[in-house]
Amino acid sequence: MAKARRLADRQVRSQSRRFLAEGPQAVREALAHPSLVVEVFAAERPSDVVRGLRQAADAAGVAWTEVGEDVIRVVADTVTPQGVVAVCRFLDRPLAEVLDAGPRLMTVGIDVRDPGNAGTLLRCADAAGCDAVVLAGRGVDPYNPKAVRASAGSLFHLPVIVSPDVPGTLAAVRAAGLRLLAADAAAATDLDAVDRQGLLAGPTAWLFGNEAHGLDPELVAVADEAVSVPLYGRAESLNLVAAAAVCLYASARAQSLTAGGAA
Amino acid sequence: MAKARRLADRQVRSQSRRFLAEGPQAVREALAHPSLVVEVFAAERPSDVVRGLRQAADAAGVAWTEVGEDVIRVVADTVTPQGVVAVCRFLDRPLAEVLDAGPRLMTVGIDVRDPGNAGTLLRCADAAGCDAVVLAGRGVDPYNPKAVRASAGSLFHLPVIVSPDVPGTLAAVRAAGLRLLAADAAAATDLDAVDRQGLLAGPTAWLFGNEAHGLDPELVAVADEAVSVPLYGRAESLNLVAAAAVCLYASARAQSLTAGGAA
Repeated sequence: MAKARRLADRQVRSQSRRFLAEGPQAVREALAHPSLVVEVFAAERPSDVVRGLRQAADAAGVAWTEVGEDVIRVVADTVTPQGVVAVCRFLDRPLAEVLDAGPRLMTVGIDVRDPGNAGTLLRCADAAGCDAVVLAGRGVDPYNPKAVRASAGSLFHLPVIVSPDVPGTLAAVRAAGLRLLAADAAAATDLDAVDRQGLLAGPTAWLFGNEAHGLDPELVAVADEAVSVPLYGRAESLNLVAAAAVCLYASARAQSLTAGGAA
Repeated sequence: MAKARRLADRQVRSQSRRFLAEGPQAVREALAHPSLVVEVFAAERPSDVVRGLRQAADAAGVAWTEVGEDVIRVVADTVTPQGVVAVCRFLDRPLAEVLDAGPRLMTVGIDVRDPGNAGTLLRCADAAGCDAVVLAGRGVDPYNPKAVRASAGSLFHLPVIVSPDVPGTLAAVRAAGLRLLAADAAAATDLDAVDRQGLLAGPTAWLFGNEAHGLDPELVAVADEAVSVPLYGRAESLNLVAAAAVCLYASARAQSLTAGGAA
């Protein structure tokens, strides 16, 4: 239990390669992959929802320990963990393995610092049908409790890669046949233009930068295209999550139209 | 100065109809409308950026008071107000006046509770070229310091309406000739379908609900169409800001294509 609490610390997480999934939604998603779950801690007086999770854990042979509601609260980062927390094994995958599967749409978040943004980026990428998400550079890790929560289960839905090596990541993704599109508020070419040129229909990896500084110019220069989201009003830019949602959905639509046309 | 500090409180704000714009970006946007600004408080040793703002304030005849950097920090909600805070007059507008101008694209956020989401919604709406934003129902007010900050200046860019009366707001918006589209994750009709049907090209008001519960079913029923954002992957939904960005940009694109075709 004391060990579980220490998983709030990034170094402890990366040494033990374990993290916490907090609350019924995250625990349910984790239990869908029982081999990921080391142990579940639940309140002694479980809610109906938690009782349902207990059945799933028992069926999968996952260890289940009842503790006081106050203990759950101490372990969890969440204000209201709703009576259940799971200790999970890291689930990130090697980039090479993910690229071998022939992804058509990927998100690469570079130096994303805010855990809420990292988790929401995962959720957006999942919603838009991305085949994988890379968190690259010196950003937050996807196992940060706030990131896990913000991902709303998406951390368990699609392959996640953690890669400090940004140039190596981009080179490998390009070598796998994906076009690198850098989301850059300063780019002269906008999303509607690349869409009209048909550039969104093929295999694509979108690069999104740090929430405060965007992408480094040298990374923008490495990409196949730098693409801005058109600004119809007077805002100087969109925030990271909104820009990512607009770009990823433009790709998802273009790719689904192409797939539909080919069928 | 003590009065300025109390503007962190919503009741004090609504009684005095004044709020704080914190940091150089927000103060610069405020000073673009000098009649909105009551007074600026700035650090005694201003940065170059703040010195530039001083010139703008002097040119516009806006009162400028130098105080200690520590005083600025006490007044401001922001961790790093960067040496400048402006006391501003409320700038929300009557709905009737805004509707008289014949808006073609509007955002209506209903019961939006999180100030960061409210501000980011304003920023998205501005970027997508909305003619106005209504914050309706029992949500956060746009003058909350976190909302002002998250709007990244957009609070000053487009008309904002604050309206506790949701049914009255929707009736007025519809009477002004806008189609009411309710963003609803459970809707059978998705965004691509309404786009293909040409429903996005005309005057449109998008309704977005509370971040935790979405729109009340009775509000969805009142709308002309309930529209879901398509989910290509396994995510159960998008978060408020991502969904709004995707919907508003679909409308912006459809309206700009129509305008282009007519030109």
